[in-house]
Amino acid sequence: MILNDAIDEIVDNINAVSAELDEETIMEMLEILTSSKNVFLLGQGRSGLVARAFAMRLMHLGMGVYVVGETITPSINEEDCLLAISGSGETSYILSTAKIAKKRGAKIVSVTSYDDSSLGKMSDLIISIKGRTKIDSEKNYIKRQINGRHQSLSPLGTLFEVTTLIFLDGVIAQLMDRMGKTENDLKQRHTVLE
Amino acid sequence: MILNDAIDEIVDNINAVSAELDEETIMEMLEILTSSKNVFLLGQGRSGLVARAFAMRLMHLGMGVYVVGETITPSINEEDCLLAISGSGETSYILSTAKIAKKRGAKIVSVTSYDDSSLGKMSDLIISIKGRTKIDSEKNYIKRQINGRHQSLSPLGTLFEVTTLIFLDGVIAQLMDRMGKTENDLKQRHTVLE
Amino acid sequence: MILNDAIDEIVDNINAVSAELDEETIMEMLEILTSSKNVFLLGQGRSGLVARAFAMRLMHLGMGVYVVGETITPSINEEDCLLAISGSGETSYILSTAKIAKKRGAKIVSVTSYDDSSLGKMSDLIISIKGRTKIDSEKNYIKRQINGRHQSLSPLGTLFEVTTLIFLDGVIAQLMDRMGKTENDLKQRHTVLE
Amino acid sequence: MILNDAIDEIVDNINAVSAELDEETIMEMLEILTSSKNVFLLGQGRSGLVARAFAMRLMHLGMGVYVVGETITPSINEEDCLLAISGSGETSYILSTAKIAKKRGAKIVSVTSYDDSSLGKMSDLIISIKGRTKIDSEKNYIKRQINGRHQSLSPLGTLFEVTTLIFLDGVIAQLMDRMGKTENDLKQRHTVLE
Repeated sequence: MILNDAIDEIVDNINAVSAELDEETIMEMLEILTSSKNVFLLGQGRSGLVARAFAMRLMHLGMGVYVVGETITPSINEEDCLLAISGSGETSYILSTAKIAKKRGAKIVSVTSYDDSSLGKMSDLIISIKGRTKIDSEKNYIKRQINGRHQSLSPLGTLFEVTTLIFLDGVIAQLMDRMGKTENDLKQRHTVLE
Repeated sequence: MILNDAIDEIVDNINAVSAELDEETIMEMLEILTSSKNVFLLGQGRSGLVARAFAMRLMHLGMGVYVVGETITPSINEEDCLLAISGSGETSYILSTAKIAKKRGAKIVSVTSYDDSSLGKMSDLIISIKGRTKIDSEKNYIKRQINGRHQSLSPLGTLFEVTTLIFLDGVIAQLMDRMGKTENDLKQRHTVLE
Repeated sequence: MILNDAIDEIVDNINAVSAELDEETIMEMLEILTSSKNVFLLGQGRSGLVARAFAMRLMHLGMGVYVVGETITPSINEEDCLLAISGSGETSYILSTAKIAKKRGAKIVSVTSYDDSSLGKMSDLIISIKGRTKIDSEKNYIKRQINGRHQSLSPLGTLFEVTTLIFLDGVIAQLMDRMGKTENDLKQRHTVLE
Repeated sequence: MILNDAIDEIVDNINAVSAELDEETIMEMLEILTSSKNVFLLGQGRSGLVARAFAMRLMHLGMGVYVVGETITPSINEEDCLLAISGSGETSYILSTAKIAKKRGAKIVSVTSYDDSSLGKMSDLIISIKGRTKIDSEKNYIKRQINGRHQSLSPLGTLFEVTTLIFLDGVIAQLMDRMGKTENDLKQRHTVLE
């Protein structure tokens, strides 16, 4: 089914991104996250949903965390960091929000496909997560050609968004190890009100 | 305009509710709110929006506050309280959530039109906010009759929702006084990321 | 109680705003709302909650309506209108969003305290809802002086936000009359999934 | 890094689920989705974020779609379907909501790890997405043992949630093909208000 091909295309992107991850950069990311008083998460559209999925796990880990745009999010300051997720690194709302955070002294960590984007340029740390445009696997292209399908199986920002989610779930595993937290610790912070 | 009549109907309800507020109950409410480690806010539909508007101000006051259903809401426990808003006091999701909170030892404060509702019965404290059915002001009824309009100017839960919002904004003023907070204190916690 | 004084201050503002409403402007607002294919609602913070409370009732009336920032909100175009709520009329996110909507040909209706704000200036129609700064009722100021309280009983945007909510609930009553809808019609569109 | 191991564990689960997908079941799912007047999406916590990510793409495809709990979600009826996402198939809010939807005549499609769960039993169609407990790949278990780490790299519902997201993005590719939609069609419905 096309469905399986689409999943293959996503998995290929995840594997390619995973292989390129730089350990030093990741360790610096963890250092910023754990040394911040509060981590503010920022994203629009489906990247915003990915930001929330990560925020939920950071909360389960017992960290101070807020999602920009939710009800109880307070002002940000120099003890905090902002983790901004934007494939293009050019979403205007993300840029204007990151600018304010930076002006108030917060550290900016960006997750983007473009290191040299406006968002990348203002960041203290950039996590590169390639989407379709950058790593368009030969294999899938040829597969599509053979099947006579030349259009994408993962439209718009899909590859970036999904790969970012899985990368951030990997960051959670790394954080659990670093902070000495077990799954049971997470369970105890998990909401019971549902 | 009908618009002005509708506003009058709402204002009449607000005034009637304000006149009936019991000081002792209010002080008990403030005591529970300020002595809780975290205040959890709960409401569905438009009552849920009222809950969030109140949550935002509690955050501005520097209190620990969460909205049930938002991303970073952790588990509730016996040091916390749940403030549940439900006109009928019978919304099934509200009841099942309040039951869990109660079982975990949290105090339950309910804001409802019906003291003897299922929600009211399981609450540690009930704040009575009458909606249309209970205080249907003579004056407006006659006004509607004269105009040949017998239908409500404030459909469904409107009177309860709006009156509850204004009541809770009054609670904020009372809390500011009790906690010695000024408007400037609130401004400093107000999000800057918009 | 301070609580009652705070409620009085809010009610005074509501009454003052209600008395100043211009029928022609309101009728033009209703004309824009009902002749648009879809109404897009926009607001930040507590004004965003007010926008959602209004959106819910427009949906109950059977109108096409979306809240900017929610999951299923599609692109806006020239058959649609944007109703933007901002007390100051200067919130940067509101301005940049309204600019995009205007460029795509949508009508802009703004609800603001400042007709000559940046938002006001780009609007096809302005609904003036005064907040504290504009109508600071003598009566309450003196009441506060006598009590030795000089600080506001309705901090930050409270007066604007609450008054706007009640104004918009009045608009719903006016729309029900115009569209020939009864409370029962609304009830049938009301979500049952809670 | 642990991060890479965690990503591997997720990818293994995705591949295992993809290999087990039953074409007939998928085609029936597509038939229900495309023949429904509106598709209602339902999920709690991170499964709720997955539901929203899918809803956004269905909207881009031009389908009628609502997320349960969002502002403008109307009542559901017999022309609609409810797609409920729950790993355990036992989340009480999901069950009570699905029950109401079923009673009103809507079709229920569930995405769950447990076909014989309460949710599964009341569904018209079940999509099985295994999470950690069911497909705990040998390979990763041994990898963890060797590294002396016996705890999970993908805590709580991670495997189910992430795999479901990617499965649903695959469903989008399949739907695009079935409906003859190109990426450009999706782009035209994509919100411009950010």
